[in-house]
Amino acid sequence: MANPATNIDNGLKSSDASRPREPIASPYMPKYPDPMSNISNFKIIESTLREGEQFANAFFDTEKKVEIAKALDAIGVDYLELTSPAASEQSLNDCRVISNLGLKAKILTHTRCHMDDAKLAIDTGVDGLDVVIGTSSYLREFSHGKDMDYITQKAIEVITYIKSKGLEVRFSTEDSFRSDLVDLLSIYKAVDKIGVTRVGIADTVGCANPRQVYELVRTLRSVVSCDIECHFHNDTGCAIANAYAALEAGATHIDTSVLGIGERNGITPLGGLLARMYTADKDYVMNKYDLTQIRDVENIVAESVEVTVPFNNYITGYCAFTHKAGIHAKAILNNPSTYEILNPTDFGMNRYVSIGHRLTGWNAVKNRVEQLNLGLTDDDAKHVTQKIKELADVRPLSLDDVDTLLRTYHQAKDQGLHASILDKIETPDMIAAMNSTPSN
Amino acid sequence: MANPATNIDNGLKSSDASRPREPIASPYMPKYPDPMSNISNFKIIESTLREGEQFANAFFDTEKKVEIAKALDAIGVDYLELTSPAASEQSLNDCRVISNLGLKAKILTHTRCHMDDAKLAIDTGVDGLDVVIGTSSYLREFSHGKDMDYITQKAIEVITYIKSKGLEVRFSTEDSFRSDLVDLLSIYKAVDKIGVTRVGIADTVGCANPRQVYELVRTLRSVVSCDIECHFHNDTGCAIANAYAALEAGATHIDTSVLGIGERNGITPLGGLLARMYTADKDYVMNKYDLTQIRDVENIVAESVEVTVPFNNYITGYCAFTHKAGIHAKAILNNPSTYEILNPTDFGMNRYVSIGHRLTGWNAVKNRVEQLNLGLTDDDAKHVTQKIKELADVRPLSLDDVDTLLRTYHQAKDQGLHASILDKIETPDMIAAMNSTPSN
Repeated sequence: MANPATNIDNGLKSSDASRPREPIASPYMPKYPDPMSNISNFKIIESTLREGEQFANAFFDTEKKVEIAKALDAIGVDYLELTSPAASEQSLNDCRVISNLGLKAKILTHTRCHMDDAKLAIDTGVDGLDVVIGTSSYLREFSHGKDMDYITQKAIEVITYIKSKGLEVRFSTEDSFRSDLVDLLSIYKAVDKIGVTRVGIADTVGCANPRQVYELVRTLRSVVSCDIECHFHNDTGCAIANAYAALEAGATHIDTSVLGIGERNGITPLGGLLARMYTADKDYVMNKYDLTQIRDVENIVAESVEVTVPFNNYITGYCAFTHKAGIHAKAILNNPSTYEILNPTDFGMNRYVSIGHRLTGWNAVKNRVEQLNLGLTDDDAKHVTQKIKELADVRPLSLDDVDTLLRTYHQAKDQGLHASILDKIETPDMIAAMNSTPSN
Repeated sequence: MANPATNIDNGLKSSDASRPREPIASPYMPKYPDPMSNISNFKIIESTLREGEQFANAFFDTEKKVEIAKALDAIGVDYLELTSPAASEQSLNDCRVISNLGLKAKILTHTRCHMDDAKLAIDTGVDGLDVVIGTSSYLREFSHGKDMDYITQKAIEVITYIKSKGLEVRFSTEDSFRSDLVDLLSIYKAVDKIGVTRVGIADTVGCANPRQVYELVRTLRSVVSCDIECHFHNDTGCAIANAYAALEAGATHIDTSVLGIGERNGITPLGGLLARMYTADKDYVMNKYDLTQIRDVENIVAESVEVTVPFNNYITGYCAFTHKAGIHAKAILNNPSTYEILNPTDFGMNRYVSIGHRLTGWNAVKNRVEQLNLGLTDDDAKHVTQKIKELADVRPLSLDDVDTLLRTYHQAKDQGLHASILDKIETPDMIAAMNSTPSN
């Protein structure tokens, strides 16, 4: 359990002050690092087995939860968060089972800020509790008065009890971005004072935007000395960017779920956050997490909740590394970093350059000529490219079609017939026919 | 065509200075508006027919392009951007056809910064040209010197020519966030001086984050007086948030595509951006765009490019308005705005509250009792809820299952047998069997 007192003096307020802050080498980052930023020193609280269970389609039996927990542990996430044992008999049992798996990840369960729930949770063997005030209406509707005092007393009672049992404890509000700021800071200050492990900020409705997040977290960072966890819903498309802004402002922990599954359209997705953080500090991310395992856990979860991995999913979506426009394809073939900030092989994926369409360019076609070892000139490649564009106005060509076109042209050139051979191919279907009846 | 000179004096630099800047009433926004911000005054350049055509699966024939163009025009997007007529014969023809449809949206085509391309484009009848420097390597590799001068001269020649023909012209760089800042500002300043309609910033590789975007656009805003267009790729999940940050910093136009389709995993999605902006200024968005048409155009495009609308898509994903956790369901039934910042009916969608699972709560069940007009007490609802949780640990119950349970309990109560009836139902299958053989 992190001791919040250790961070008071150095002002860094990070959960791992031992990691030195060196100048950032990434070409995509500001030249000089911000001392408040934790983009090179963050932790992931993986909540597929809690927030993810609130996804419309999710129904995980114990066996499936164990499979998902092990797959997430293989990636190296720092924490797994489980549904409250107060939710149902099986939820209680699952907390026990997963706590006993001996995973590297610490196990948390997410409960209401009640003594009953806390006692039930502690007995399951989890490493910590993420407690939350059960409804946002308290903080929105009651400003400074008996109710705030009552909530604060209740929070202190529950937190003190959990700490007395030697467990981590996080205290969070719901809907923090629509709460009264003074109430919010007051209660966080009170729980920080009694040694809460983390405080949590939650954009429960998905309304927050990055500059707002940065300001709130930065303000909170100067009020509490404990760690700061953030939870962002994605209703308006900012869940990854908000997580990033929170880390820039000094947050230490980000909640994620596999494919982002959760209430409504979900929260910050694990894969998407890792793509974002890889861009910010590749070394930190690659040393800490096994990025090649993302696809496996996504497939397990997608199958279990009966969804298709979105075509445009970060990293694993089937077109994430497909390059099409002629100008992109040309540059990618020369130097992938021109149009690619994620190296597909770091994620166990492959790059694909598409060339059989009307937006193709002759450089990409020339590259294919070289791959096929056909020895055509630049002018040859330009002629064939013109033909591809013409045919692809009718329908896109497969790579097989392009190869057939190139081989046919090459063969004709050997026979001195290449000046006229392309004219004879008038439709994409004619190439397809040549594909199925190879001439040699 | 916007006249950049009109905005020089008032410092607002917006494309529609006539719209007054009133205090922002939305509870999710800062109390006092930022005078640089265009979140209440932005325009959409819809690029499904250009960037979207660079999506791996995209192949739009003329008929499909016309269908998509009309559907986008029905939403009310400000501009449609088309593939360069220099790309292929059909691309040239499509520019002519769509320019002649008489749509409310202005028609743009996206070309290289070459005189040949510009001449070809102008003859098609488009309202404007979005010209782009063909490769980012110029701005990255050559700092201050002949090459910069050469590019600037070329840009001035092309822009002057397009303006002389009475068309809008935007000048954009590629990969702006990895370009040399001084070079970038120099060339934008030069083209602004000769009256370019808009300058464009492009995060071609998807590496930018919102605070970086805010800073660059804010800097640029003080260098040029023309409009500022932004284009964001989504490789690391910031395309919507970056668009929002750009508008906050004074950008005027955002590029989108339907479902975000484009190179790799695409760009800022039209639906997601509208969800984001609805949260920021509902009146502006609702008055200007027909949000109920988003689903139709998404279905047209998804079918055409042979993808499934992602389960977690903004607004139209099938779980975007589904509420599940007991505590959420209770609050939503009392007051939807507690957990919902997007009103589904504004988007032609419906809300769904899921109650047949182990995370359910008795308030949600009670609400169903009232919908069914069964007249059970709170204690009754709590008993049935306990039973639902127990059964749903085995498998989730359908709404039919829940209804059967409630009706059975209600009927037993009429007969004075409700104390024991729930004990007799031991498995979900027993309810399912009751479903198929109704007792009355």
